[in-house]
Amino acid sequence: MQEILEEIVKNTPGAKGAILMGFDGIAVMQHVAEGAEDTDIESMAMEFSFRITELREAAQSLEMGGLKDIMLRAENGTALIRVLSDEYFVAVFLGDTGHLGKGRWILRSNAASLADEL
Amino acid sequence: MQEILEEIVKNTPGAKGAILMGFDGIAVMQHVAEGAEDTDIESMAMEFSFRITELREAAQSLEMGGLKDIMLRAENGTALIRVLSDEYFVAVFLGDTGHLGKGRWILRSNAASLADEL
Repeated sequence: MQEILEEIVKNTPGAKGAILMGFDGIAVMQHVAEGAEDTDIESMAMEFSFRITELREAAQSLEMGGLKDIMLRAENGTALIRVLSDEYFVAVFLGDTGHLGKGRWILRSNAASLADEL
Repeated sequence: MQEILEEIVKNTPGAKGAILMGFDGIAVMQHVAEGAEDTDIESMAMEFSFRITELREAAQSLEMGGLKDIMLRAENGTALIRVLSDEYFVAVFLGDTGHLGKGRWILRSNAASLADEL
């Protein structure tokens, strides 16, 4: 799984790191990009994990079904989040210049392998 | 503003409707696509408005800066949300077959005109 996270970060231009986390906010493992060691992706993912849980409940109650992907674009960075199972998600954090489309594609194409190993 | 919402819905393939709402959950106006009259986009947007407020606070506290765009993709539909100002956002709801890229582009290119009229 560590290798998959590394692969995601390496292939996503602008990625600062990727993290596999439970919706309870407990990190399974992470990979931070070279030069982005000061980015605390664990705190970032943790901060979002509880909100994602609420969004999932909202989507369910609105008959949108299970939430699969979330993209949050802010002034100084972007978070791409993919739900892997009822309990786990993977998040990639990009700097301002991140290539969203490519990032989402890389995340999607690696999600199955991550979910398989959970 | 009504015309802009209509324009967004018309130009976004798969769009069920677009709505302009305050973060307090109070709708300003909306446009529902022909044939999607049974979709209660007001309730959907309201359900998300409070969660978006929390996500904005999270992004701020993580020094990601102001939240600009949110995309939520679920099994049966997708929500594209764009923050217009501190108080208002516009949301577009797409059915399962919605074209995300085009939807985001249409929303982005109309956001300035909507914000101007607020």
